[in-house]
Order: sequence, then C-alpha cells, then structure tokens
Amino acid sequence: MSAEDELIARYFKPLAKHPGAFGLADDAAAIAPPQGHDLVLKTDGLIAGVHFFPDDPAEGVARKALRVNLSDLAAKGARPLGFLLSIALPKGFREDWLADFAHGLGRDAEGYQCPLLGGDTDSTPGPTTIYVSAFGTLPAGTMVKRSGAKIGDHVFVSGTIGDAALGLRIRKGELDDPSGHLVSRYRLPQPRMALAEAVRAHASAAMDISDGLAGDLAKLCRASDTSADIEVARVPLSDAAADALSGDCDLIEPILTGGEDYEILCTVASDRVAAFEADSARASVSVSDIGRIVAGNTPPRFLSTEGKALSFLHPSYSHF
Amino acid sequence: MSAEDELIARYFKPLAKHPGAFGLADDAAAIAPPQGHDLVLKTDGLIAGVHFFPDDPAEGVARKALRVNLSDLAAKGARPLGFLLSIALPKGFREDWLADFAHGLGRDAEGYQCPLLGGDTDSTPGPTTIYVSAFGTLPAGTMVKRSGAKIGDHVFVSGTIGDAALGLRIRKGELDDPSGHLVSRYRLPQPRMALAEAVRAHASAAMDISDGLAGDLAKLCRASDTSADIEVARVPLSDAAADALSGDCDLIEPILTGGEDYEILCTVASDRVAAFEADSARASVSVSDIGRIVAGNTPPRFLSTEGKALSFLHPSYSHF
Repeated sequence: MSAEDELIARYFKPLAKHPGAFGLADDAAAIAPPQGHDLVLKTDGLIAGVHFFPDDPAEGVARKALRVNLSDLAAKGARPLGFLLSIALPKGFREDWLADFAHGLGRDAEGYQCPLLGGDTDSTPGPTTIYVSAFGTLPAGTMVKRSGAKIGDHVFVSGTIGDAALGLRIRKGELDDPSGHLVSRYRLPQPRMALAEAVRAHASAAMDISDGLAGDLAKLCRASDTSADIEVARVPLSDAAADALSGDCDLIEPILTGGEDYEILCTVASDRVAAFEADSARASVSVSDIGRIVAGNTPPRFLSTEGKALSFLHPSYSHF
Repeated sequence: MSAEDELIARYFKPLAKHPGAFGLADDAAAIAPPQGHDLVLKTDGLIAGVHFFPDDPAEGVARKALRVNLSDLAAKGARPLGFLLSIALPKGFREDWLADFAHGLGRDAEGYQCPLLGGDTDSTPGPTTIYVSAFGTLPAGTMVKRSGAKIGDHVFVSGTIGDAALGLRIRKGELDDPSGHLVSRYRLPQPRMALAEAVRAHASAAMDISDGLAGDLAKLCRASDTSADIEVARVPLSDAAADALSGDCDLIEPILTGGEDYEILCTVASDRVAAFEADSARASVSVSDIGRIVAGNTPPRFLSTEGKALSFLHPSYSHF
C-alpha cells in the first residue's frame, strides 16, 4: 500500500459506513435516493488562513467543514445521506493533525447520520484546503428555493444572529467574550437539521445564512423579485451578543452583515405562520418573525424602532 | 450582486444546463438518477504546481479537471450526469484566465453531456486548486468494482500506455517529442466513455489508470485477493512512446509506472473475452489483452519476452 492509501485506510475508512462507499477501497461510490426522492447536492470549502485560523484545533475544523454543508441541506428541506471529502494537505503536515481531523469528522458523520462516501487526498504547496460535497434527500420536486418569496410573506430566522461575526472579532482580539459563547458559535456552527421538515412543509423560500443576514436576505429577495422590511429590534440576539451591542452600538453592522451564522432564513405566507411556528417548536428550534417581504427591487431595509433605515459599509461577505 | 456572484453568473451559469442546477441561482442542486439506477460519485482534484504547471493554458486545465473524473465514471461503467466544481483562485488571478477556464470546461461539459450542477468559488493565499465531483448513472447494483477479478481472467487495457508519463518528462525538458503526441496526451486525457457499456457488460473488475499501470493493477489485484502476470511486450504503446523507448530502454519504468494514462484497466473472464473485444470494436476503442490474473498476494509481475520479471524503483505515484 502507498502512504496515501495507508492514511486513507487508517483515518477515513472507519467513517465510510454507507455500503455504497465500499469501504473506500474502490474508485467511486454508488448511492441511490429512495424512490420518488431527489438528491440535493451542495459543495462548500474551508481554506486555512481564509475560513479558519491555521492553529484552530483540527477536530473543530473538520466538524465545521461538514456542518457548513449540512446547514445548506437543512435550509433546502433535505435530510443528509452522505458526503465526499477532498483534502489538500501542506507539505510536512503532522499525522496527529489528520488523526484529530478524522476524529472530529467521524463524530459529526455519526451524529448527523451522514457517512463519508469517498474523497480525494492530495499534497499541496499551499494551505490546508478542504472541500466537502454533501448529499441530502427529499421527496422529488420539493427542494425549497431562494426564489419563492411572495409579497406579504413573513421573514423568519432560526436561532440567534451575529454571534459568529462577533466571535470572529473576539478571535482576532478585537473584542472581549466573558462567556465564551460567541467564539464557540464562530468555531462550531449548529446546522438546523431539525428544522428541515418544517421549512419544507411551510416555507415559500429559504436559504442558510452564511454571508450575513443582510446580504443573504438581499440574495433571496433578488431571486424572488421582491424586497423586504426588517425590524432590527426583532432580530434575535444571544445574551452575549446583546451585551456586546449594549457596550458598542456600532456592532449592529457586523451582527447583521458579518456572516457565518449558519441559521436558516426563510419566508412563510401569513396563513402558514402558525403552523410553521408550531412545527418549529415541536422540533425544538427557536424561530423569530423579523419582518415582511415587500414589493420592490432595492435591497431589504433594516429599520430602527424609529422607522429609520440603517445603512451598511459592507453589506455582505465576498471573496473578490 | 457581489463580485463573486457576478463572476459565477458571467462564466459558470452558461455551463449549468441541467434544470436541477437552477441556473446556479440557488444554494444547492437537485437531481435524481433514472428509476432503478444508481448514482456513481467520484471526486478528484488538480492543484497548480502539483498536478499541472502554473503556466499551462487554463482551457486545458479545466478540461483535464473534468476528464480525470469522467475517466473514473467510464471505468466503473457509468454514464455522466453532471458535476460540481470547487475552485480556489489565488489573490490577483486574472479574469481572462477564468474566462479561458470556463470556456474549456463548457466545451467538455457539452461534449460529454455532463453539465455543471453547482459549486463553490473561493480566494486562496495558495495555488489555484480545483476539485470536481462528478456524478454518473448506471442500472442499480452494476457498478464495476476493483474487487471482482478471478484467477484466469484476462487483463485488458484500453488505448496506449505510458504516453502521459513520457509527456510529463518532455514538459520538464528531459526528453524530445518530435510529434507532440506525448505532451498532448499528458495535457488532455481522453476518458474512454465509449467503453463504459462494454466494461459493465463483460468486465469482472475495472478501474482507470491514474497512478500508473503497475501500481493500479497492484491495487486491483489486492482488492481482488489475486496477483497477475503481465507480458510487457503486449502492453500497447503509441508510435511516439515506442520510438522514445527504442532510444532509451530505461523508459520502460515510467511507461509502466508513471501514471496519468486515464485508460481503462479491466479483467475479463475467458468466456467473455470475444464479446468484450467485439463490443469494444463497435465502440471504436482499441483494447489489448496484456496478461492473466493468477493466484497469489504479491504485486503483479511484469515479464520480459525471456520471462524475467522487471523490478521498479518507484512502482506507483503517491502524494505522501
């Protein structure tokens, strides 16, 4: 066996529990969604120095790499089936880093019932680069799109907004975090798998929030050919984020635009709101009604309690 | 629109012709294999400075990135359905590089009827890094594995062996290439999609040759709990490779071990050989019977016309 095959057999084979992964001993995997179901596909990556700090613990990096993809599956209404992992390791990587990475990945693959199906392991002269392609299933034709929002629909978000953006500032030493909550939200997203069914049953449009609430809502509105009015006071904040904001009200911008929330943003018609809220409660995921879809082709307005629209310096994260 | 979304809309949206790609305007794609079919999954990547030269033309890099994955689908007996593209671009990349890349990718997506389904575009402090996840379909349960070879089966390869390995030496300035054939074989693999049906109908085991005939046959034999005896004189060479070898007989090692052939290696039971050869001829793909599967757990032997086993310094490519 080559060193490459040995690493794969030692660290990744135990994660390949789907029979169609053939124990990672073949060149490809074979899967099928249940009859009458579609397969939902998503790929998203993490690069050291861009999406995570090179000294972040490997176990958390692995879990985040999988979770950012699972978050998309949940927002589309899908249930996880499995994933492919592509990883490029820098020269001189430490095998204990890879062992920790595989341990974290295996923990979440098990926890989310999303086994490893296959992958590719390379050496790179650059930074550690990880791409996950995740696959989910849902009844055929029921994927919840960005483009279905209608004027008058209520705008919902799950969980709390802005924690990860503040956590990143803390990680950079720009803010304090007495509770540790904000950094933990930055390090390890909580994909809202439990909400997938309620989203599929009731939402007219949905996406996960990865590039910030303001920017992602603007994308949803553009795809739906609408705009939105959001009441900033109704955007749900964790206690830690509310404390930070009370000390520096300029933090409202990173909270609303900073990204990496990995919460679900969705729109729900008025007559489905009660059912959506009830199903969300049954799924034990908090959801908050933060505003309405309105006519227009301008970016959503974020309104203060006085009805004044906030303006942002950097409305959304972009790589270029 | 962010600069990232604009690049995607300008260069990649035209490639997303599958209805389940939603014009790359959503967060995920939705597909389904035909009823009674499996989906075959494969991911493989190219990194600048590792798998290609940073000054290689972008169009060819894109086509190779897709083709190395299609080659695996063909060897497993599958027909292409679509692919995901993850690409990390270095700071200061030139937009005309991306335009050329997308042009090449679109050409092959069209030619192989394998549309783009979605992807992820990032910025990296490292080299250009490209991962493709390709999806194919075949009747449920018929994926051709590595592990099915039986003692007495004939060992077949498609096309010619060693061209790309010699092409890489030429690209490095270590060899001459009067015809240009060898470098073109290194730059642009020809995945044997036309052979997929014949492989699925007749092969007991199959894989594509990416890490060299010797190493990949060793993997197939190990997975099948067998060994093999190969007659080196029967390994098919192009005229250009034969010319190079006649000038330097030490080149037999890179020819047999160098990799990137992207030909199909498969094993066929004696009573299926005639049918396999006939179906291959109908598909206009040349195949060569180069030896037999034998009992044992040692690496395959490559035998000279005098019956002497060759020994190799580096039997197979490994990243680590």
